[in-house]
Amino acid sequence: MDLQIPKGTRDLEPEKAIVRKKIVDTLKRVFELYGFPPLETPMFERYDVLASKYAGGEEILKETFKFSDQGKRELGLRYDLTVPMCRFIAMNSSMKMPFKRYQVGEVFRDGPVATARYRQFTQCDVDVVGNKSITADAEIIALTQRAFKELGLEATVKINNRKILNDLLTCAGVEQKMHDTAILSIDKLEKFGLDSVKKELHEKGIDKKTIEKTSSLISVKGTNNEKLKSLQTELGMTEGLREMEETLSLLKDLKIDVVFDVSLARGLSYYTGIVMEVFLNDSSVKSAVCAGGRYDKIIGQFIGRGEYPAVGISFGLDRIYDAYVEKNKAGSKTVALVYIAPIGTLKESIKIAEELRNENVPVDIDLQKKGPSKNLAYANSQGIPFVVFIGEEELKSGKIKLKDMKSGTEEIMDAKDLVVFLQSSLEK
Amino acid sequence: MDLQIPKGTRDLEPEKAIVRKKIVDTLKRVFELYGFPPLETPMFERYDVLASKYAGGEEILKETFKFSDQGKRELGLRYDLTVPMCRFIAMNSSMKMPFKRYQVGEVFRDGPVATARYRQFTQCDVDVVGNKSITADAEIIALTQRAFKELGLEATVKINNRKILNDLLTCAGVEQKMHDTAILSIDKLEKFGLDSVKKELHEKGIDKKTIEKTSSLISVKGTNNEKLKSLQTELGMTEGLREMEETLSLLKDLKIDVVFDVSLARGLSYYTGIVMEVFLNDSSVKSAVCAGGRYDKIIGQFIGRGEYPAVGISFGLDRIYDAYVEKNKAGSKTVALVYIAPIGTLKESIKIAEELRNENVPVDIDLQKKGPSKNLAYANSQGIPFVVFIGEEELKSGKIKLKDMKSGTEEIMDAKDLVVFLQSSLEK
Repeated sequence: MDLQIPKGTRDLEPEKAIVRKKIVDTLKRVFELYGFPPLETPMFERYDVLASKYAGGEEILKETFKFSDQGKRELGLRYDLTVPMCRFIAMNSSMKMPFKRYQVGEVFRDGPVATARYRQFTQCDVDVVGNKSITADAEIIALTQRAFKELGLEATVKINNRKILNDLLTCAGVEQKMHDTAILSIDKLEKFGLDSVKKELHEKGIDKKTIEKTSSLISVKGTNNEKLKSLQTELGMTEGLREMEETLSLLKDLKIDVVFDVSLARGLSYYTGIVMEVFLNDSSVKSAVCAGGRYDKIIGQFIGRGEYPAVGISFGLDRIYDAYVEKNKAGSKTVALVYIAPIGTLKESIKIAEELRNENVPVDIDLQKKGPSKNLAYANSQGIPFVVFIGEEELKSGKIKLKDMKSGTEEIMDAKDLVVFLQSSLEK
Repeated sequence: MDLQIPKGTRDLEPEKAIVRKKIVDTLKRVFELYGFPPLETPMFERYDVLASKYAGGEEILKETFKFSDQGKRELGLRYDLTVPMCRFIAMNSSMKMPFKRYQVGEVFRDGPVATARYRQFTQCDVDVVGNKSITADAEIIALTQRAFKELGLEATVKINNRKILNDLLTCAGVEQKMHDTAILSIDKLEKFGLDSVKKELHEKGIDKKTIEKTSSLISVKGTNNEKLKSLQTELGMTEGLREMEETLSLLKDLKIDVVFDVSLARGLSYYTGIVMEVFLNDSSVKSAVCAGGRYDKIIGQFIGRGEYPAVGISFGLDRIYDAYVEKNKAGSKTVALVYIAPIGTLKESIKIAEELRNENVPVDIDLQKKGPSKNLAYANSQGIPFVVFIGEEELKSGKIKLKDMKSGTEEIMDAKDLVVFLQSSLEK
């Protein structure tokens, strides 16, 4: 039979899984620096939870993998990590607020398959629930910038506020009931350009004068402060602008750069305050690698009681992985730092391997008596940085031959110096 | 609406997820010390792969969650990590051998729900493929012992060899075709006692004399060496006994303790050499926490070509978690080491939080201007070890009041000493 992988999915062979693990470990470490603990929820949820009115919506539901258990209960693979978090909060309503959590996990969408569009992909979500303060927004941005710094990727964080967009549309003369659909059009500015946005607004029945006013407002230029000033002149000091001013001032204090982008909308209508997207500088990954914002109403609506103001961001692991690999070149197939090639000394070599592991040096060893040239070929194929040959002579003399696989150079060293040498190259 | 979790699944709230992460991180670190890199495969597989003749078998297939994608392809949630590994090897047949990998991941079984029996649970598998050498078996045992040592759990590794069981049954007079079913009965010795095993063998049509001989052989007592000697006297020096002798000698050299248990069988008929189970000493978790062995034929049969001798072990994360929590008492809801409670100094306090994070200290901070007593209550509810109050006076004087939440003591210290103090308590 032909053993195939399901359409739209992929394996992460060691070469990729090692890099992914490094990225995920870095993200988790940064999340924890900000006091976010992990939460884990099942890979699937009850279908009625996934399909509930304030969950992911019709479009996403069409792409939900649906099945049932032996008790005929309808279930679905989770399509995001937000709905499970809301369900968790609903079931644990006595929890102290604010509730902070991160979750890194696979999500599933049975949609069309394309390049870099998979039916299983990984989301890394960070959210604070039960905190209305815009300092929480700022902290999420600080966390985001730190994460990319730790990953060695230069990133630009673009922010806006849904209240500003609403005020701006009101000022331009767009009716309240048209705001959400107008925002959906504005969201396409970055991707398709101003003319396309204008055309779409026109098709939605908005008159020319209103469109022109809207266009000029979403196109304000200058520094963050200049944009703020321009909009204040047009709109007056609205709540949205006051929030933005405060956020920008706080971030400036913390020496954290952001770009205030008036056209940034984020399609999802559930955002109520700040919205943000992160783009990488100097990368062939042009799409946003993170996105998020404040959503003060949806959790309460979803649960059907209580107030749960919330702000969060989601890191797109697959895109970050692509950018990371582009920057750091090909990864390695191995986690081992050194490969021991015994020459008639298997037992003693295993002992030496164990001793190195006692000192936290990751070791691979030939257990099959392969012979030097085959061993070199194997170590080379795996990308293991160092090879140590251990024969009778080495055991007697206490000297060891270490081959640096990258430079090809060989070095004779005292066996007791090997640990120190390897540990120091681990730290690099 | 009532928001519920699917039957047979559970959330891991922060308190549990933090501990699980610690255990998983430790396991991964040990796996990597032995040169095993990670592999990741999708959560679901094509149903025909899961149902293929040499996959998990009928019983397991009945408990497989089955569904289909929009293209009507039949899929199933994976029920183990072995079948996906075999499928991966089949699709990557040009890989250099030996292929080593670990995988930590969720698996799914739509079976009856009971205490500690979930429909989603986590397996941690380590396997070497393409290595016939029994030193590979020994290395897996060394890795296992190291893992439990690092987890601070005392473990007993029991080993046996399927070849010994077969030789022993032949010697006792059990027909070849009855070996597999007899081994299934012997496997129950530990759990149900010798009389129960005898009764079952009798019901399977084995005569009394053969049963008595079998019983006496599987009940040999003494040290590992004494058992070896007794069996050698009865069976002669068979291949199985020679392998066991070599394994025990190698492990003795490495100062790794194991118990040679002649009755250890492991039900699964695909094992061909060593079989092993790990039990915890001084724990209320009485069942095996790890199990594995050598399976030299099944991968080749599954793929339909080639030879892929293999040995591996699977760590049962859920049981290990229970034992770990029992030993280490309740975990914490928080990953933060310190909670900053600003008193009218929010902006400055956020800066201090960021500076502490620069020094890798995980910090949580009140961003909602809660007031000292509410902040203490919150920090206490989360289990955060230290609270720092920062008011105007503290900023002016450069002195800071640190409260140790466990002892209740307060200490005034220079702000610059705070980092050093917190870092040193991180290392503890």
